[in-house]
Amino acid sequence: MDNPLTGRRLSLVVLGSTGSIGRQTLDVVRSLPGRFTVIGLAAGANVTLLEEQAREFRPRLIRCGREAEYLRSRVSAAWATMEEMASHPDADLVVVATVGTAGLAPTLAALRAGKTVALANKEALIIAGQLITAEARRHGAELRPIDSEHSAIWQCLWGEQPDSVQRIILTASGGPFRDTPPEEMDRVTAEQALRHPNWQMGQKITVDSATLLNKGLECIEARWLFDIPLDRIDVLLHRESIVHSLVEFRDGSVKAQLGVPDMRLPIQCALTYPERVPDTTVPRLDLRRIGALSFGTPDMKRYPCLSLALEAGRRGGTFPAILCAADEVAIQHFLAGHLRFTDIARVIEDALATHPGTADPALDDILAADASARAWAEDWIKAKT
Amino acid sequence: MDNPLTGRRLSLVVLGSTGSIGRQTLDVVRSLPGRFTVIGLAAGANVTLLEEQAREFRPRLIRCGREAEYLRSRVSAAWATMEEMASHPDADLVVVATVGTAGLAPTLAALRAGKTVALANKEALIIAGQLITAEARRHGAELRPIDSEHSAIWQCLWGEQPDSVQRIILTASGGPFRDTPPEEMDRVTAEQALRHPNWQMGQKITVDSATLLNKGLECIEARWLFDIPLDRIDVLLHRESIVHSLVEFRDGSVKAQLGVPDMRLPIQCALTYPERVPDTTVPRLDLRRIGALSFGTPDMKRYPCLSLALEAGRRGGTFPAILCAADEVAIQHFLAGHLRFTDIARVIEDALATHPGTADPALDDILAADASARAWAEDWIKAKT
Repeated sequence: MDNPLTGRRLSLVVLGSTGSIGRQTLDVVRSLPGRFTVIGLAAGANVTLLEEQAREFRPRLIRCGREAEYLRSRVSAAWATMEEMASHPDADLVVVATVGTAGLAPTLAALRAGKTVALANKEALIIAGQLITAEARRHGAELRPIDSEHSAIWQCLWGEQPDSVQRIILTASGGPFRDTPPEEMDRVTAEQALRHPNWQMGQKITVDSATLLNKGLECIEARWLFDIPLDRIDVLLHRESIVHSLVEFRDGSVKAQLGVPDMRLPIQCALTYPERVPDTTVPRLDLRRIGALSFGTPDMKRYPCLSLALEAGRRGGTFPAILCAADEVAIQHFLAGHLRFTDIARVIEDALATHPGTADPALDDILAADASARAWAEDWIKAKT
Repeated sequence: MDNPLTGRRLSLVVLGSTGSIGRQTLDVVRSLPGRFTVIGLAAGANVTLLEEQAREFRPRLIRCGREAEYLRSRVSAAWATMEEMASHPDADLVVVATVGTAGLAPTLAALRAGKTVALANKEALIIAGQLITAEARRHGAELRPIDSEHSAIWQCLWGEQPDSVQRIILTASGGPFRDTPPEEMDRVTAEQALRHPNWQMGQKITVDSATLLNKGLECIEARWLFDIPLDRIDVLLHRESIVHSLVEFRDGSVKAQLGVPDMRLPIQCALTYPERVPDTTVPRLDLRRIGALSFGTPDMKRYPCLSLALEAGRRGGTFPAILCAADEVAIQHFLAGHLRFTDIARVIEDALATHPGTADPALDDILAADASARAWAEDWIKAKT
């Protein structure tokens, strides 16, 4: 894990390189010349962008979900699965920025190979947090968060003793509908849901931020990343998205991490830790100009998906997988215009009520619950529309 | 430096035990039974309280500025100077909570003996920061801040690399006169100046908080404690005194430490570091209830003492000693009703303009500048009143 001043370049694998976090990861790599070598790139459907990235970064390994033959004829990289890339002997740090369950197997492969994993994929920890953290411990592999909230918590914990933590407080902006009258929520459009007040992100996570399901998922993530029970994790409404999260310690002291809302900051932090590298591309936080920061309690009636996510987290087992599967299907249909915004919570609520759930599931149980909840959600939606 | 769970008790010396910080230090000791042994207590004029403290904590060493004979006949502790206590072979941690230049010699004695020093005395670092930090480095002794702002910065720096720091941002409440029309400042009374909106503190520091001279002194302290030039230390107006200070890092990330305004928190932190001990006496911070935090730029016209302190800090040498001496004399006369509030800045401004200042002063030069500025200030006041 050397930096260019003290030794060799860090070898990076970027899984999900054409998504929002993947592209910004490569922005960070580009802004710190001489520090990283990208040895592997994997993407889903965006072959055009992946080809561009491969021409620029010249990875040794590549993988694409579609049109593999076409790409294979145009770039010189070797073909590899995401698991092969993630566990490659030359990889130092694996950025997992895929969406959905696809990130799970490569995350486990990287950890089993003792790699440092910078994790932007939420689903992996949410549906299989127990498995993932157990593998990380077993193989002495390090997990670093990329999400701004978890990066904030991570930064607040540097230099602190593990048993000093009393509570973790995740901030939530409240999303685009924080001031929408409840009776109008039935009629909000996909276009409105995709207009997040503070963050530029992918489509699915932007809708999850509008329902606040995303915040519930982050609580489950934090539970695993920081080894703390869910009942010691709070959600704090904070409209400005400047305080990215907070940690309350046993002595009553509270630490917070703040910054302008820009994902390149937590991405760079995960890539260069423990060093903090000067960044001139991200604007500086100026609290004098911002003037005021506001805090409040999220209204659970306005955000039923937040309650549902916390409930799935508390029930554990395969329930978080069922939650994520039903949510993903529901959002696809909402974005396609087949479902109302408020139906997202209904699909999830029914999915959690219908499926039995399995305690202490193995990976296969989790993937089976995921597949079953997806099929069930498709049927639910077909029946209603 | 063991705690009761892993070994022997820590031996404490408390200099200035009857002042505001000294009393709260003993509150913390009382609230953590079995963790500390108080082996030395030193106070100035409050013999009655010192006697009470000696009966409760049974220190081996004692010192009093007045009525020594009386006290000697009533408690069994051995008589010692503050320097002797501070450098006593059995002392682990020396809390320097005296006011004024009296703290300087014992602080140096403790550091030369390799003791950990928890420093609440501002003047020591302000007038002799270079000497003190050089002695600490030379003898491998640790300096821990007790001031809430410096404790906040210290906590934000745990686990961070020294070269990661970009800026230190000290928060200031603005004191009791933050909304007083400038034309009324001539007529504010000592009683009003002593009514701080957020903190319960000693009289001198409360007046220094009203003039914001205190914030300028804290910038100079931070300059030495954290080895950072004054031009990378900012003052941020923050009325609620909840964010105790912030650190901006090179990558643009900002960390803040927050808490209810209660000095027992930073005192306990300095006493138990690196452990954070549960504290049930200090109320927990609840941002949902607080609702909003505000930030702004201090108006230098309203607070001429802040500019004067920063100017003295920039000029260095004996100027900070001249600043402190003139300020202390002026505040005594303001509290006694001989001076107007706005005269405090005039005394300081004239003192800085009149005295030549010495670059790279030795301890004797500093003490001579202090004595000379005090005498000069007394004359100034006598001439004007």
